Amino acid sequence: MSLLVTGTIALDTVETPHGTAESVLGGSSVYFSLAASCFTDVRLVGIVGDDFDRALLDPLRVRNIDTRGIEIRADSKTFRWRARYTGSMNDAETIDTQLNVLGEKAPQIPPEFLDSEYIFLANAPPATQLDFAKRFPGACLIVCDTMNLWIETEPDALKQTLAAVHGLVLNENEARLLTECQNLITAGRRILEMGPRFVVIKKGEHGSLLVSHEDLFVLPAYPTEKTIDPTGCGDTFAGGMMGYLASRGELTPAALRSAMARGSVVASFVIESFSIDALARINRDDIEQRLKTLRQMSVYE
Amino acid sequence: MSLLVTGTIALDTVETPHGTAESVLGGSSVYFSLAASCFTDVRLVGIVGDDFDRALLDPLRVRNIDTRGIEIRADSKTFRWRARYTGSMNDAETIDTQLNVLGEKAPQIPPEFLDSEYIFLANAPPATQLDFAKRFPGACLIVCDTMNLWIETEPDALKQTLAAVHGLVLNENEARLLTECQNLITAGRRILEMGPRFVVIKKGEHGSLLVSHEDLFVLPAYPTEKTIDPTGCGDTFAGGMMGYLASRGELTPAALRSAMARGSVVASFVIESFSIDALARINRDDIEQRLKTLRQMSVYE
Repeated sequence: MSLLVTGTIALDTVETPHGTAESVLGGSSVYFSLAASCFTDVRLVGIVGDDFDRALLDPLRVRNIDTRGIEIRADSKTFRWRARYTGSMNDAETIDTQLNVLGEKAPQIPPEFLDSEYIFLANAPPATQLDFAKRFPGACLIVCDTMNLWIETEPDALKQTLAAVHGLVLNENEARLLTECQNLITAGRRILEMGPRFVVIKKGEHGSLLVSHEDLFVLPAYPTEKTIDPTGCGDTFAGGMMGYLASRGELTPAALRSAMARGSVVASFVIESFSIDALARINRDDIEQRLKTLRQMSVYE
Repeated sequence: MSLLVTGTIALDTVETPHGTAESVLGGSSVYFSLAASCFTDVRLVGIVGDDFDRALLDPLRVRNIDTRGIEIRADSKTFRWRARYTGSMNDAETIDTQLNVLGEKAPQIPPEFLDSEYIFLANAPPATQLDFAKRFPGACLIVCDTMNLWIETEPDALKQTLAAVHGLVLNENEARLLTECQNLITAGRRILEMGPRFVVIKKGEHGSLLVSHEDLFVLPAYPTEKTIDPTGCGDTFAGGMMGYLASRGELTPAALRSAMARGSVVASFVIESFSIDALARINRDDIEQRLKTLRQMSVYE
């Protein structure tokens, strides 16, 4: 089924203990769509400035990602993010954010995208997410992400958005902040009361957790020794998950579990390189192979 | 096979968001032996002062734990620990430690215990652990725990101890501190170079990790919404693990995985009450039942 993502397209500068990547391709919709494209056709809605080198999108086109929803806005500049990872590299320290074109009006959804059945609203102001959600009244599945900033500054708008979506993907600290609840399962249940049918709580190297009315699922992360750059991990997880769900076309608890496992494994590739380098190279076979290894590493009698 | 534990017997005062428990039974060897007694016969070597109410040990005797190795030292006082848990309750904040009898000479191992085949050396000064380890030259399996204090203040003694044991159980922060390595798998491999054949890294609510020369195993924790008091969780984990291993009498990678799963599940009961209340009530059937639930909560296609 058709999968649409709206989110950022960024030029990232990232410093890690392994080096620095300068002005490389990043952004939530980029990581998401590359991950999802391992499973299904993806439509991307995003916006860049006229400083953006279109050749950067070649890896997306190679994967048949429909980039007709990327607006190149004249007299605007592309969103830029500079960050540093240290220590356990679980959290990025933002050094500089230049919103640029993201501070202007949101991109348009091409009319030919309006029949999309699976929708992912990457992190954005909740009111913007809600506007997008309303454009897809007949969608099978609308899932959103959010972040600390909106939980703290736009709690009412965020609650309206959560009431309008079917699923929420967020990290453990965001789940705790949103619910004022330390226990993640309890936090998940509180989020269900806000509207979504399911919530996926990402815990980085510690795996992830699914809470829904029908299910509770715990998944360890694929253990990797090679952490070069965690940027985009969460969006990649969501992309793998949504891409798999759209390819499967059903929303049973078993399908959600399988989808999270794929998302988690795709994310384990992303951290092994800067930017999208590793992600652009893998295919579905690589994912299934690593999933098999993860299963072997977590089975017990 | 016979399992012996040496460790502390404590009177704990613990404050959590759920209330305060005053001068209740605690200590590493107490939690360990109760957990292990679900699987096998346990011999306990520890020490208390003459202020200790012997009736506190009744729950251990009910479980056939051999308490002949508990010395009640005249003119000494029992070890006391006061701590507080807040927030996510992952870490205790120690408010007061009264070493008392623990600051004196170590307890004696009864001669009839010297044929023990499985040995657990709970957290103690590394030199004390090494002395104990040397008393069991023919043991099938000697495993120890340690803590930040010894990693920082007794690194050389700790390295001697690690060279003399077969396994190490420690938490993720301790593993990082010991190896100066953030990635836990790499940290595990570095610890193997120090001597042990395997290392189990505990991650609290996030589960645990086994690194050995033959195996890499990731295990999510049993997800629980009821966290009353995490005290003793790590020692309970070790007790369930070692008790299962001693009952099985083999040390294959598969046996180690099964043992960790039991340890993890037993620990999930401990946090549901203050002190040993929940732990003293459960039996092997309760553990297997919860293990079955954990398996159902972590399976995917």
